[in-house]
Amino acid sequence: MAVYTDVSDADLDAFLADYDLGEVLAFKGIAEGVENSNFLLRTEAGSYILTLFEKRVNAGDLPFFLDLMKHLVDRGLNCPLPIMRRDGAVLGELCGRPATIISFLDGVAIRRPRAEHCRKLGEVLAKFHLATADFPTGRPNDLSLAGWRQVYDGIAPKEADAAFPGLRARMGRELDQMDKLWPQNLPSGVIHADLFTDNVFFLHNDVSGLIDFYFACTDAYAYDLVICLNAWCFEPDMAFNVTKARALVSGYQSVRPLERQEIEALPLLARGASIRFLVTRLNDWLSVPEGALVVPKNPQEYATKLAFHQGVYDARFYGLDFD
Amino acid sequence: MAVYTDVSDADLDAFLADYDLGEVLAFKGIAEGVENSNFLLRTEAGSYILTLFEKRVNAGDLPFFLDLMKHLVDRGLNCPLPIMRRDGAVLGELCGRPATIISFLDGVAIRRPRAEHCRKLGEVLAKFHLATADFPTGRPNDLSLAGWRQVYDGIAPKEADAAFPGLRARMGRELDQMDKLWPQNLPSGVIHADLFTDNVFFLHNDVSGLIDFYFACTDAYAYDLVICLNAWCFEPDMAFNVTKARALVSGYQSVRPLERQEIEALPLLARGASIRFLVTRLNDWLSVPEGALVVPKNPQEYATKLAFHQGVYDARFYGLDFD
Repeated sequence: MAVYTDVSDADLDAFLADYDLGEVLAFKGIAEGVENSNFLLRTEAGSYILTLFEKRVNAGDLPFFLDLMKHLVDRGLNCPLPIMRRDGAVLGELCGRPATIISFLDGVAIRRPRAEHCRKLGEVLAKFHLATADFPTGRPNDLSLAGWRQVYDGIAPKEADAAFPGLRARMGRELDQMDKLWPQNLPSGVIHADLFTDNVFFLHNDVSGLIDFYFACTDAYAYDLVICLNAWCFEPDMAFNVTKARALVSGYQSVRPLERQEIEALPLLARGASIRFLVTRLNDWLSVPEGALVVPKNPQEYATKLAFHQGVYDARFYGLDFD
Repeated sequence: MAVYTDVSDADLDAFLADYDLGEVLAFKGIAEGVENSNFLLRTEAGSYILTLFEKRVNAGDLPFFLDLMKHLVDRGLNCPLPIMRRDGAVLGELCGRPATIISFLDGVAIRRPRAEHCRKLGEVLAKFHLATADFPTGRPNDLSLAGWRQVYDGIAPKEADAAFPGLRARMGRELDQMDKLWPQNLPSGVIHADLFTDNVFFLHNDVSGLIDFYFACTDAYAYDLVICLNAWCFEPDMAFNVTKARALVSGYQSVRPLERQEIEALPLLARGASIRFLVTRLNDWLSVPEGALVVPKNPQEYATKLAFHQGVYDARFYGLDFD
């Protein structure tokens, strides 16, 4: 849940003076997004989400994210559309922070997806990759090899070991391995990089849209797929559900068939996708003040997923048929 | 801000099976209410607020609150209407908590009301009091004299003095005074008891509705008025704005003229309305764990208001003309 900045009606009125949205009918802080403050905004013109970008987002990256959303909508992919101000800009300032208004997307996040949801996700992920092929700009993934190492180096060994004995050392060994083994030169382009179940809305069992593009970056398409594999295909008890994995990957391949080198790289990519969330979750876990009402996600989940992928020989373990 | 309970799409679907609201189009936790978890719910039938009542609300009181809202809507006062389930009930259970769905009310809370807003508030408050005159049930105010004392007695002297030196002793003296002086036998009925600016929505500079009836109880009408006086008529620097006070009271009197004894009791009632929020805010302040992201309201504000009212001889200080 996240509403970090308090926006008064007067602040809001001043901000909206730059837009053509009519009078405000409702304005409520919503518990969505962990990096930003988000508000439901209903005006005479329709329903919107107003987002204030808090410190953790690099303001220089915002045009990339907003242009990307507009590009996706232009290509027929359902995602929020940044709303233009009277001067043509899509980014303003509110309460001293960069702020934007995007269209409101109907749909509900599915907490416990079934295989059919995983298949739909695979299809839409592949459509997303195809739709961004002609997107003119990119953004380096600051949470890849070097970024993982940087977050890892900031984690105090003593505190980490007190909370999760031995975990930090295991992570260090995995990072050393990744430095040597990380696949290069895979088909790449703009990826979402954070397609957890909260960021995929469904209506009538179809994907109604994707949200939260604020981790989007340039990286291997197959890496995006294994981020989803980790987020969607493990059961609450951490059992890997190969039926869901097969549905996810075959949904993806029905739109964009994977190349041989991508399939071969999947286990390593999945290890990378695990260490990526493991380092940030461990870091967040140790940084949150005791007694805080926002409970950080337990890093143990991604330690377990990492261990699973370390034991995977090839993509057959994920339900792919190949020889 | 408040979303204390996490409701999954599966939990929601099970709960909504008892309603005739069609398919869910959107469901988002919102940062409204401090005692409950609130969600924006949009279905094919319209927009609603789904509320889960957390521990601090006494489940036995819920029928009173929900019946009151329905009564007010029947009398033409704009407030959320509890939505009936197929079996006719308005209260169900979700995630192990009592839960209800109420209609969504358009409008925006005004953070810094002007005198014209205070006048409209006075009018609607008096209409609320008239509209509840024939409401068949009541609820004792558990945050009156005995309740203040109870909360006060639970405050650890050492911690209170460390945070606000001398404040607890001043509060004790005031409570002793209130025990002797608290006015009895004033015109009474159902009051809202918590009409802070967050709970009054405006549209086009008119009140579009009142929300959050979960402190409503039976008490003196004029006590409700001074709760508003405290919440609406002090400037951020704690200066008392007599223009706003005059607007509030004359708006009220344009609908329901105050009796002589009510006017005379206003300064004492205002002291009571100050100590009431002072004890709960001091208690909350000392109970919240360090580092929590939800910052409790500073009790000092109501200590200052109390001191102001202690210096008031009669209602002329509040801008009332009488002799």
